[in-house]
Formats: sequence, structure tokens, C-alpha cells
Amino acid sequence: MEKFILLDHGSGGLASQNLIGSLFLKHLKNPVLNQLEDAAVLPPEQGQLAISTDSYVVDPIFFPGGNIGELAVNGTINDLTMRGARPICLSLALILEEGFAVEELEKIIQSIAHACDYAGVPVVTGDTKVVPKGKADKIFINTSGIGIVADSINITASEARTGDIILLSGTLADHGITILTSREGLQIDADLLSDTRPLHFLTQAIITKFPGAIHTMRDPTRGGLGTTLSEIAKTTSLCIEIEETAIPMRAEVRAACELMGLDPLYLANEGKCVVFAAPERAEEILHRMRSIPEGRDAAIIGRISEKPAGRVVLTTVSGGKRLVEPLSGEPLPRIC
Amino acid sequence: MEKFILLDHGSGGLASQNLIGSLFLKHLKNPVLNQLEDAAVLPPEQGQLAISTDSYVVDPIFFPGGNIGELAVNGTINDLTMRGARPICLSLALILEEGFAVEELEKIIQSIAHACDYAGVPVVTGDTKVVPKGKADKIFINTSGIGIVADSINITASEARTGDIILLSGTLADHGITILTSREGLQIDADLLSDTRPLHFLTQAIITKFPGAIHTMRDPTRGGLGTTLSEIAKTTSLCIEIEETAIPMRAEVRAACELMGLDPLYLANEGKCVVFAAPERAEEILHRMRSIPEGRDAAIIGRISEKPAGRVVLTTVSGGKRLVEPLSGEPLPRIC
Repeated sequence: MEKFILLDHGSGGLASQNLIGSLFLKHLKNPVLNQLEDAAVLPPEQGQLAISTDSYVVDPIFFPGGNIGELAVNGTINDLTMRGARPICLSLALILEEGFAVEELEKIIQSIAHACDYAGVPVVTGDTKVVPKGKADKIFINTSGIGIVADSINITASEARTGDIILLSGTLADHGITILTSREGLQIDADLLSDTRPLHFLTQAIITKFPGAIHTMRDPTRGGLGTTLSEIAKTTSLCIEIEETAIPMRAEVRAACELMGLDPLYLANEGKCVVFAAPERAEEILHRMRSIPEGRDAAIIGRISEKPAGRVVLTTVSGGKRLVEPLSGEPLPRIC
Repeated sequence: MEKFILLDHGSGGLASQNLIGSLFLKHLKNPVLNQLEDAAVLPPEQGQLAISTDSYVVDPIFFPGGNIGELAVNGTINDLTMRGARPICLSLALILEEGFAVEELEKIIQSIAHACDYAGVPVVTGDTKVVPKGKADKIFINTSGIGIVADSINITASEARTGDIILLSGTLADHGITILTSREGLQIDADLLSDTRPLHFLTQAIITKFPGAIHTMRDPTRGGLGTTLSEIAKTTSLCIEIEETAIPMRAEVRAACELMGLDPLYLANEGKCVVFAAPERAEEILHRMRSIPEGRDAAIIGRISEKPAGRVVLTTVSGGKRLVEPLSGEPLPRIC
């Protein structure tokens, strides 16, 4: 195997086949992927079909707590699971820059394999393109995924309603602040780590136990919790009230945000979800979430009321109120 | 709407929402996509699930006969349909370079919308990332797709068997030669056009009419017919015999290949398929293919025998025999 990616690795010929055999199948092998057909075919499934896609262009590609590979696996699993889906498979499409180190590519593929194993969701089909040096930045990854949603489940923004309790599954802003500080080469705190992780164990646990009581779920990635809540407020034309003091945040993340002048409400999360639940079951749901590792720090952070319609109102630490708008005019590129 | 793509359009905030509303939903709107959820949810379907993914990095992005947008729609539809699937939906993920002209993006989105309408396959979910200027080349597109395969259908390379007749649905090398000449700025012949088109009307017609008689299908894209046939010969450990004189090719494509010293067997096709069929039904299948516009030029180009095992043998125009190897050492990057 060559040490660096060549244009020939993307030509669909012998070099592509070698790359697939010596790297991708070596780490990702499973009976469906091994067929290497134009499309993967899976047995029939009962239920609604969920489909999601995300491209990952994060910079840097290796960061504290993870890398672009596991981020791509977990991110698409999480998008599926926010609709109540049980993820069943992923596709994996790579765009590689000519000259990218094969050793780095192998680390990323190993990490993808590990994340897939942990989540129990296989890569069943893939694609690799190579562009000339300078026409991409190292590696971009697209993962798309299919999930199955039980026929009785309808989890969507428009299901959120007045009185709903809002739960957050854990601490805020870990991924965003980690990427931004590591991109700038800042060594603010050795303990800043991305929170990239799959959420389907957590979400399936509460959906199964509290069917009908989970109305809406979202993972606040790009744009952060502030933008996510703004979207739901707009979709429902209701008012989302949250308490700043109730939002779990690690002390080192809070300190780094203050140092860099960043609002954690707009920083990306890659292993957290916000859940809108029926008030009469909220405490039980919180208890169940906390019993699962990825929901250990879950908290109730607010509720839905009626007015002001379509807005998010934050009660600040000092007891004041402020409107939370969607992220605007402050681009935070390549965070995922 | 701005005239050029800004980093902010990929931040997941207000600018992203504006881009989605003013461009993507404007052209691609449908009830599922309009929900703008993290994942799309579709009603249950009966049958096996097919999934496929492809990233498109073609250079140039606009070329005679098409552009990167419709190529991305048709290409993934075709990958699904080669397994006998009826495509039901697509995902669409864009990686945009900062500074890319919004007018060009809109042309591409319109073209995607048109291709989806023509094929009857909607985009149900999407993603947009923006990378800084110089970190990508204008636009890269990933489409992934889901299709449904009837339970009785099993079309795959390993189903090809001794005695099978090999049909090609139309003329060879149109897409590859068009991209290469238009990239080089050569005006060899005004009639060179990409063959990008969806193949599911053609494939569904023959699968429905001749169930069990269609053993294997492939669309010879990157790597061309030569590489595709080599892969099938290797998978089956059988011998694929083809006749050079039987392969349909447009005169202008043949001339351009000769002028540029390129072997049409290795050039990409984006609207052709090769079909391995039971010999007793081959003439009827050919007749049915020719009755459909995209199969008008279909021809029988060869058959499967036993030896030399795992090889492709071409009978040349002059009556000689030569082995066809997979594409190697002659990179033809960014052809799709």
C-alpha cells in the first residue's frame, strides 16, 4: 500500500480496489459491505423508514476526544435517533485530497469501525473520490443512515406543546469549545474534550418506557442549543422558557467560553439531546435518562408556555430575562 | 439573498435557514423535506431495503449534456436500480466553497429538482457545509438513496453464470469523453454530450417482465465497462467474452477517443447498464430494452463462458483476442 493517497485511488480501477481491500474492508468488513455492489441490500424491516445525511468537514480532523471519523458515525446516528428511529445501517462516502497520508486515513477508518461496533450500526455501502492536491482539505466524510421508527411513534418539532418540560441530556458546548480552542492551537485546559457519542441507547430507553410522552427531540449541533430552541419555538409558534442556572456545563468549558468571549448557547454539541416531554412524566424521564451513562448529567432546563409566541426566553443567572435569537453573523465554520 | 456563498451559510444559524428557505425549499419542496427535521421519516414499505451513496466532484461542474446536480441525482438512482431496486427517496448533502456564486448554485439546485421530478424520486433530507475559500473546489455533492427490492429479486454479481448473455443498454463512453474534452477546453465535436440519465424505468421494465431471467446488472461508471466486467469475472471466477464490433458507440465518441488516445472501455458512462441475462430470454429482453428510449441502442455484446476463469476476453475488430484488465495507472480524476 502506498504511503499517500494518489489520484488513481479514486479512478474506480485497480488502485481503488486495492484501497478498498487493504483499508476499508480490513476494518469495516461485514457480510453486506463485503459484497461491494453498487448498492447494499438489507432484509425487510417493519416500521416507518428514517433517513438522514451529514457531511463532515471538521478542522482539525483529529481533536481532543475524537476525530472526524467517529464524529461522522455518531452524528448521523444521532440525527436518526432524534426522530425516534432505531438506526440500522450507515453509508460512508469519502472525499480525499491527493497526498493525504494513508496512515492518517487508516486511523480514521479504525475509529469509524470502532464507533460502528460500539453503536451496533454497520457501514453497508461506500464511495471514495480523490481530488487533486489543493482542491479539498485532507478529508471530507459523508455518512447517511437508515433507521426504523415504530409505527406508533411520531417525534417531531410540531408535536411540542404548551406545558411540555424541556430536558437536556448533559453538559453544554463541549464539542464546540474543544474544536475552536484546538484549531487556534490554544492549550486552555487539558480537560476540554469533544462529547461525540451515539445517543440511541439513551433515546430508545426513554421512548420504549414512556411511549407518547416524548414529543420532540433534537441534538443541538451546529448553531447550538440557542438556534435549536429558536427553530422549535418558530415551528410551534409557542414560547420556550429556559433557565440559565439549570443548564449543566463543565467548569472548564464555562471558563474557556468566557476567555474566548463565546456564548455556549451557540456552540455545537455532538453527544447531547434536548427532549420535550409531557409534564406528568418529566421527573420519571429525567430519572431514566440519568440512569444511562450518556444521560448522567441530564437536567430539566425549562418549559413551554404560550407567549411571547415563537420566541425563546432565557432567565439569566442574575434573574433577568433575555430573548435568545438564532445564531447570526458570527460564522463558526468547520465545527463538524 | 447574497450573491456569493459565505461561511455563515454553513453555520447552522439564520444564514443557513435563509439559504434553505430561499433556494433549497423553493425548488425542492415536498411534504417530507419541508419538515426540515434532523432525519426524514417515510411510511413503511414492503420489501428488501437497498441503500447507496456517491459523492460527486466532477470537474467542470457544468458540461455538455448536464451538470453536477443532475449527475448526482441520476448516479445514485442508477446505483440503486442495479440491484433491482425501485428508488424511493434521496438525501442531498452539499459541501460549498466560500465565494461560490449563488447563481450557479441555484442553477444546480434547479437541475436537481428537474432530475428528481423526471425520475419521480424526491429529495427528503439534506445538509449544507461551507468551507473557507481554497479548501474545496466550488461544490461537492453527496447523494444517498433508498430503494425497495421485491422479496423475490436477487440481482448481484455472484448470480451471473455460464451461458449468460451480456447486454449493453446503449452507446459507450459518452460521459467520460465529454468531461475530458470539456475540461481540456477542446472543442473536438459539438455533438459530444454526457449520457447522464436515470435507468430505473428501463431496469424495472425488464425485471417486471422477466423475473428470474436478469441475473446481474451494473452501470459502468468510473473505470468504465472494462473495469466493471473485470470485477464480475473476478467475483464469479468465470470468463466474460465480448465482441468489440458489437459494442455500440457514437462515431464522434469513437473519433474523439482515437484523437486523445483513450480506450473507450475505460471511460465512464452515466446512463448505461450492462445486463447479464438467461440465454433463453435474451432476445426478448433485448427487444424490450430497445422499446424504451434509454435502451434504444441496446445490443448483445457477449456471453459468459468458463475459461480462462476470472478473465475478460475481447474479440477485437480484426478478429484477434485480448485480455481486458481493470483500469490501472492511468488516473482519470473527477470524472463524476
